[in-house]
Amino acid sequence: MPSCGWLLALSLAALTGIAVGAEGTERNCSLSPPYLPSTAVNTTLRLQELRERMRPLNISAYIIPGTDAHLSEYIAPRDNRVAFMTGFTGSAGTAVVTQTKATLWTDSRYWVQAERQMDCNWELEKDVSISSVAEWLITEVPPGGEIGFDPFLFSLQTQENYNINLDSSNRSLKSIPANLVDQVWTERPPIPPDHLTRLPDRVIQRTWQMKVDHIRNQMRDNPYEPTALLLSALDETAWLFNLRGNDIPYNPFFYSYTLLTMDDIWLFVHTDRVTDELKEYLNASCVGSLCVQLKSYDTVRDHLQKYVAQPGVKVWIGTEYTNYALYELITPEEKLMTSSYSPVLTTKAVKDETEQRILRDAHVRDAVAVIQLLMWLEKAVPEGKETELTAAEYVNNCRSKQKDSRGPSFETISASGPNAALAHYSPTEESSRRLTVDEMYLVDSGGQYLDGTTDITRTVHWGTPTDMQREAFTRVLMGNIEISRTIFPSGTRGANMEMLGRRALWQVGLNYGHGTGHGVGNYFGVHEWPVGFQTNNIPFRSGMFTSIEPGYYKDNDFGIRIEDIAVIVPVQTKYGHNYLTFDTVSLVPYDRKLIDTSLLSSEQLKWLDNYYATIRRLMGPELDRQGLHEEKAWMLKHTEPFLESGSSASVCSSSMTLIALAIALLQNII
Amino acid sequence: MPSCGWLLALSLAALTGIAVGAEGTERNCSLSPPYLPSTAVNTTLRLQELRERMRPLNISAYIIPGTDAHLSEYIAPRDNRVAFMTGFTGSAGTAVVTQTKATLWTDSRYWVQAERQMDCNWELEKDVSISSVAEWLITEVPPGGEIGFDPFLFSLQTQENYNINLDSSNRSLKSIPANLVDQVWTERPPIPPDHLTRLPDRVIQRTWQMKVDHIRNQMRDNPYEPTALLLSALDETAWLFNLRGNDIPYNPFFYSYTLLTMDDIWLFVHTDRVTDELKEYLNASCVGSLCVQLKSYDTVRDHLQKYVAQPGVKVWIGTEYTNYALYELITPEEKLMTSSYSPVLTTKAVKDETEQRILRDAHVRDAVAVIQLLMWLEKAVPEGKETELTAAEYVNNCRSKQKDSRGPSFETISASGPNAALAHYSPTEESSRRLTVDEMYLVDSGGQYLDGTTDITRTVHWGTPTDMQREAFTRVLMGNIEISRTIFPSGTRGANMEMLGRRALWQVGLNYGHGTGHGVGNYFGVHEWPVGFQTNNIPFRSGMFTSIEPGYYKDNDFGIRIEDIAVIVPVQTKYGHNYLTFDTVSLVPYDRKLIDTSLLSSEQLKWLDNYYATIRRLMGPELDRQGLHEEKAWMLKHTEPFLESGSSASVCSSSMTLIALAIALLQNII
Repeated sequence: MPSCGWLLALSLAALTGIAVGAEGTERNCSLSPPYLPSTAVNTTLRLQELRERMRPLNISAYIIPGTDAHLSEYIAPRDNRVAFMTGFTGSAGTAVVTQTKATLWTDSRYWVQAERQMDCNWELEKDVSISSVAEWLITEVPPGGEIGFDPFLFSLQTQENYNINLDSSNRSLKSIPANLVDQVWTERPPIPPDHLTRLPDRVIQRTWQMKVDHIRNQMRDNPYEPTALLLSALDETAWLFNLRGNDIPYNPFFYSYTLLTMDDIWLFVHTDRVTDELKEYLNASCVGSLCVQLKSYDTVRDHLQKYVAQPGVKVWIGTEYTNYALYELITPEEKLMTSSYSPVLTTKAVKDETEQRILRDAHVRDAVAVIQLLMWLEKAVPEGKETELTAAEYVNNCRSKQKDSRGPSFETISASGPNAALAHYSPTEESSRRLTVDEMYLVDSGGQYLDGTTDITRTVHWGTPTDMQREAFTRVLMGNIEISRTIFPSGTRGANMEMLGRRALWQVGLNYGHGTGHGVGNYFGVHEWPVGFQTNNIPFRSGMFTSIEPGYYKDNDFGIRIEDIAVIVPVQTKYGHNYLTFDTVSLVPYDRKLIDTSLLSSEQLKWLDNYYATIRRLMGPELDRQGLHEEKAWMLKHTEPFLESGSSASVCSSSMTLIALAIALLQNII
Repeated sequence: MPSCGWLLALSLAALTGIAVGAEGTERNCSLSPPYLPSTAVNTTLRLQELRERMRPLNISAYIIPGTDAHLSEYIAPRDNRVAFMTGFTGSAGTAVVTQTKATLWTDSRYWVQAERQMDCNWELEKDVSISSVAEWLITEVPPGGEIGFDPFLFSLQTQENYNINLDSSNRSLKSIPANLVDQVWTERPPIPPDHLTRLPDRVIQRTWQMKVDHIRNQMRDNPYEPTALLLSALDETAWLFNLRGNDIPYNPFFYSYTLLTMDDIWLFVHTDRVTDELKEYLNASCVGSLCVQLKSYDTVRDHLQKYVAQPGVKVWIGTEYTNYALYELITPEEKLMTSSYSPVLTTKAVKDETEQRILRDAHVRDAVAVIQLLMWLEKAVPEGKETELTAAEYVNNCRSKQKDSRGPSFETISASGPNAALAHYSPTEESSRRLTVDEMYLVDSGGQYLDGTTDITRTVHWGTPTDMQREAFTRVLMGNIEISRTIFPSGTRGANMEMLGRRALWQVGLNYGHGTGHGVGNYFGVHEWPVGFQTNNIPFRSGMFTSIEPGYYKDNDFGIRIEDIAVIVPVQTKYGHNYLTFDTVSLVPYDRKLIDTSLLSSEQLKWLDNYYATIRRLMGPELDRQGLHEEKAWMLKHTEPFLESGSSASVCSSSMTLIALAIALLQNII
């Protein structure tokens, strides 16, 4: 699924237990009394309680961000403080409360939803930039006033951004580590009680001890001589110890921090969730450089402070995601060492041989589910009973039957006609369209498997697409192919190649408004940093996995996206060394009906035929193994080579055959 | 000429009056007494004098950078303090002097030259990063020691970079605005006495008053509400007032700063160089918002300090090139407003209609000179008497005869065989190779004209190129074409497209180590910031001019570069608005013998034929006008269309003709 800029349309309604009615009318606060739909949440009492907590702290305003202490992209219901305070359950929003006002900032995707879910205590602001929030704060907070924030919910950068925008305004930020919303939120969901789990040996090449050694070597080799590494992103600790949890929807993570030095490993978790077996696995009862000392999750700040107080220490943090509450403890400056990403994230980005093999395997099984969906839809849609929701359920169900399935990797985007023009739309009972042969259909879905995370998008048409739809689809496909077939020196940045995904669209004045790809990995979040095509991604190396997903969206009409996962592999070149290319591991054919082969170059057609041959080679045996004979026939039909039937290159070569024929005929006659 | 990373190989020997002997042996400081070639400069006395000046200031070291107070890319001889102090005349170098040591840092291009020009007072360091200089300083300067520098010769960024590298080392920088080298350099060349000149009306669309109004509007519209704009790059002031000078070799600039407010214009120049006529032109005797108040060049610091001392002022500066001496005066922070480039530079980047027209015109005349050179070389080289130097002289001479010529825009790069593998090589008496039919030849040259600055590179072979040479040349050409023919949305960054210049090379494992293009303009420096393909360039807009110059260099063997200037123009697309593409304004054909058309796509061949048709259309009449009939015939021969003779597309269409023929024959017979 696309990531950049546009955030997730995770429907948190169900997760937070806050009901969203089906009526869907919007509030009207200018009436007297105001009109409130049944979907609106009464926030009077909770606002009153929050304001009471603010008073003794002498803060004029309190900022409530929509993230967690690990700056996670997806958050658990217990971290959705914005939803609790405002009633609004969309995935992107920032709330600010003063003694007299309460305002929510959210982007255009959510304006209608916010008007349906908020009562008249809340105002809605539509420019979501920090400068807009700061401008509002300068208006509402008196000179000299302080603005409270929970430093656990601010990244370094967010804090700095607010600071720059408030600079010279005589209003300042005040860090308040004890969250005020949590003090008011009596029904706040608890930490899940479930035990953490370790990955089975069959999906692991490097034990946690090997990983710790490897990371320590990188610390040792670093010229700035860090003495400790602080891991605060949830996938950092999960990766290091080969552990998983279930604290965050769609993401197999658990609340944790790690502080790693040359001699000690401190793991901050909810220790009651660590079984005796896991304690043994972690060497939790010994003391030594390969023994994990379990500490309570809530003590990380105290512990870090004590560590930093020692002479001669220097703590390495990743600036892109470490929260301000931990960052602000690391003083004076010479005790701090920063890089955008920790060595754990950059090491994790390059998959080892086992990880590569099993992530490819997971994509084979995942393709079975998507092929099942597409085949079924081809038959079922003309009967007129299927909807976006039933299609989403179908593919989720197909995935759940595959080996090692651990559920979807994000909420399935199943979108027909105009709904697909919203790049992150997921259907609700209210919005779900019936699927018909008259509309294009886009399905962006993925699975979590013990061995890997998948993410694939296909766009299809069951009737007769318009010329424009075919052209746009073909040009999106050309973008996908042009990136996939490119050869580039190791270390090239994705951001410097991503225009290849847009170029065929640009040619006719089309474009798309999201990023072109993000990393994925082995049973982690579906957007795995720091790999991908954005400017803050790290350079491509062999063994990284990324999505490639150009698209095109025509407002109120249709949406196209073609998304595949590819692994970066070495390639032999005529003259040079250290060159790489992409090898696509998603294995589902594209809708032939939407491909205008006359637009494709012979290189693009050749790439497509090679890809289809790969699908046949890998999916044929798997479909056989699963006894899915109809699906196999469907797959074979949809992967017929193109170069035998109708490309310009083949026109050329077939005309050669004609010449030969003609000449033969002539010779016979003469 | 290429700019990024690699700096200029400007031979300053002649300019500084320091002789470079032809013997070219290197010093040997390990002998006793040391061996010094006649090219070495005795620096004992000047070092002694410099050290005497350092003592009363209590500085342990003094840094001597190789730039001027405007952070110019090219510097005047009087600013070449590194050359004076060290004897080394290369264009890139930093020198540091302590009471006991003296060290020069320069990159690999100049190591041999440095060993020939320096005496044994100097050590040579080869890692030119600031961190390497700082490391050396930490070793040589005692704890607590101060390191002097001239703040006029440091950009903000250089200063910050040194600071970061010296951080927590207990050594600090000390700003010393009165340059110590200048106090020792008794023979320092004076400021040229020449008068400044104004551009004739025929090359101007916007008067300086219109430009001032336009820039003031941008200041007024800026949300940060700057009250003043400080212009410190030499082309900023030259552009604003439509003035030119001759203080810097190859660059028509004059020493100057401008401080512009809503009510005043202060121009800091050597006022004795401003004629009465110019004073009138500048309204220098009145007081008012469109009167230019002339101030002595040396008073800029005092004046800025006084301005900043007023309440409520805020000074806007461009951080990429403002010197630290002016920056450090703008305190407290709320009086400072920064952007990478001033609104003068971003406005100047987009050429108005007149500028576009005359810059295209200049390229027509410039192409005459290059065509004359290439035609002459074709005839002369086989006779065996020509060299890199005579070829450079020839093209310089041809240019000088064109209308409005103002000399070369940089030292001509005329490089045969292995010399061309050094991307910035310029021939000297010592290095100049004889041109032969057995070597490839690269010529990168440009002219200054009253109406425009040009820069073009052609690579040719007068004998039989190897297969590898043809392939590499063709792939470089493919890079040039792929960029040139790309359609992209207005506002796309060059850095995000420049891989198109490399992609055909990458395909076979080849690459090049310099940037892919830089801005050019109307009688300014040949590398005109901030346009181009580097990450710190601004997004492309219609009306900008940039070079496009991929290359390939095979060490000790040959070098290829194909460089054209293109203007960014709007293009109609099928569906979208606001799309742009490149229109090449350099008008010289490529060496046909080096083009392997079988590697080109039909789109590339079509582009090439269109380009050649443009050359014929524009150069034919110009060559006629200048009575250059042989040159016209040469041009026509070298711009024959490709698509009629041997492309794969034409193979295809000609086979179609064959079919028709065959069928016609058959019908006749049957």
